[in-house]
Amino acid sequence: MAEGSGVEKVIIIGSGPAGWTAAIYAARANLRPLVFAGRPKQVPTTILPGGQLMLTTEVENYPGFPEGITGPKMMACFEQQAVRFGTRIVTDHGLSPDVSTADDGHSYAYHDCASVDLSKRPFTVVGEDDKVYQAHALIIATGATANWIGLENEMRLAKSGGGVSACAVCDGALPVFRNKDLAVVGGGDSAVEEATYLTKFASKVYMIHRRDQLRASKIMAGRALNNPKIELVWNTVVEDVLGDPMITAVRLKNRQSGEIRTLPVGGLFVAIGHTPATAFLNGQLELDAKGYVKLKDPYRSTTSVEGVFAAGDVADSVYRQAVTAAGMGCKAAIDAERWLAEQGIE
Amino acid sequence: MAEGSGVEKVIIIGSGPAGWTAAIYAARANLRPLVFAGRPKQVPTTILPGGQLMLTTEVENYPGFPEGITGPKMMACFEQQAVRFGTRIVTDHGLSPDVSTADDGHSYAYHDCASVDLSKRPFTVVGEDDKVYQAHALIIATGATANWIGLENEMRLAKSGGGVSACAVCDGALPVFRNKDLAVVGGGDSAVEEATYLTKFASKVYMIHRRDQLRASKIMAGRALNNPKIELVWNTVVEDVLGDPMITAVRLKNRQSGEIRTLPVGGLFVAIGHTPATAFLNGQLELDAKGYVKLKDPYRSTTSVEGVFAAGDVADSVYRQAVTAAGMGCKAAIDAERWLAEQGIE
Repeated sequence: MAEGSGVEKVIIIGSGPAGWTAAIYAARANLRPLVFAGRPKQVPTTILPGGQLMLTTEVENYPGFPEGITGPKMMACFEQQAVRFGTRIVTDHGLSPDVSTADDGHSYAYHDCASVDLSKRPFTVVGEDDKVYQAHALIIATGATANWIGLENEMRLAKSGGGVSACAVCDGALPVFRNKDLAVVGGGDSAVEEATYLTKFASKVYMIHRRDQLRASKIMAGRALNNPKIELVWNTVVEDVLGDPMITAVRLKNRQSGEIRTLPVGGLFVAIGHTPATAFLNGQLELDAKGYVKLKDPYRSTTSVEGVFAAGDVADSVYRQAVTAAGMGCKAAIDAERWLAEQGIE
Repeated sequence: MAEGSGVEKVIIIGSGPAGWTAAIYAARANLRPLVFAGRPKQVPTTILPGGQLMLTTEVENYPGFPEGITGPKMMACFEQQAVRFGTRIVTDHGLSPDVSTADDGHSYAYHDCASVDLSKRPFTVVGEDDKVYQAHALIIATGATANWIGLENEMRLAKSGGGVSACAVCDGALPVFRNKDLAVVGGGDSAVEEATYLTKFASKVYMIHRRDQLRASKIMAGRALNNPKIELVWNTVVEDVLGDPMITAVRLKNRQSGEIRTLPVGGLFVAIGHTPATAFLNGQLELDAKGYVKLKDPYRSTTSVEGVFAAGDVADSVYRQAVTAAGMGCKAAIDAERWLAEQGIE
């Protein structure tokens, strides 16, 4: 089938753990899935091929790799597996099962999806080159990106495994953070969760917050305030992250006094929220209060539009782990396959 | 801490993808989880160390292994990873981080759990040797076993990858089943789902059912009856499975006429239900109508008893995949960790 002609059985948008797992299952079910893998423009403003794991170095908690595996290598494995069973990927050279770029985990020739029309079936998906595709079923697996402070050195150290992270559960247990003084930026429930988690490993955790009280719920705020290992740093923003190749300190500015100081830390965890990649949906799928795709049945992958399924961080503000996203991708493919069978679409 | 003394932070019961993933996450959160890995008595009547994957050969759909991996090898990797971060396993030689047996994926020295007392906290877990353990939190990941017909040759071919399986989604896409005549045993919704799924690959699918009508819902039954690739074989039971090392045929007996005949098939899929391993709970956790542990919030791992979390096939009658079970195990460990933090249990 040439691209742009005919109706696909299922199009998958996104290429993190959820997207590729959905592709593995859909391909094995003979659905010949088509994947919009995304395109890195300015990280983190768009769908990143390979997802958030492309920003990590060592992944220690995805089950199956006792010695750990790098994020990009892991995503390359997922992709190869999806392609092995017949997944096709939209690129600027047409539809490709090309995995010659698997060494670095992604290809810059992959295409992003520009928009979708969910108002009638088959659904319409428009690529970034304005090519139009149609599909009986859609799987939305575009993920969510961690919000970063926006500092050059922050991104440099985050990408290189230099001690800057947006996920304590993922990275907090790494040996590099043991018995160190660490900093968490943020003041919400998630920031308190991250800080509390890090006290298991750190000698001390500074919570750096731009205001003079936490946004977190009372019970969560109390947990931070009463934890002897957590020290609140109020009215303060991070101006720079120091160190090469590893973080050594953060430069802080007090927003009231204007005072600048350098705080030595062995790690920085940015916990100022996530942004689910749902803008391209243009309001056509029901979202929850935080902007995540709302699952119609929280145990499954169904959404407010029949035939559209969601998986991974785009529909998960709670766990955000590679293996939970992969599990959701599997569910979405199985749900889509069964739904297509119900519709008599072979 | 000596076994039997003190209170564990979390005890995990079960050692399939859900149990080991829960252990990986709990161990990385410094909870030093204790695992009852189970003990193979007469498969499939008890908790099988490593879970259902120990009965499979090649696993092609667990994401991360593009070339596939055997079930036992995969479970050995999961276990090694859990042990690497501090998981302890109950054995007949005490608590062990011993992975010297990882080559064959399990050790016969592992202990099963005999009973639990969920009526007060900390919870009590009694091992098969009557040793008593206590834990602030429990993760139930005991799985479910596929029901088998109960034939010697059926189990021989199932364990050896000889073309007998209890999971079409897992195994149906294997090359060995392509363009073959296949048989499905069963008459419920799952049997119809399996048969429908297999028509993607098979030249023909015989549905062998002991009665003269399907137990499946009307809509599902209609799907089987109207599928030109599915042929119903009524009032019939499988008496034997023929072939070595690969299945070549099934011997069938018509329950009305008594007629015996041999039906050549290239694969047999047994779809006569699953039995979740919940007997040891002795009614202390709320179960659903099918006997699976009922999740209090279907998106999470909470159960009817606060502090008790469930993950994997024991709480999943819908998807039953290694990766979905692993995702649930991750959720259970994160939920347990956050709940323990709320309780002020360090």
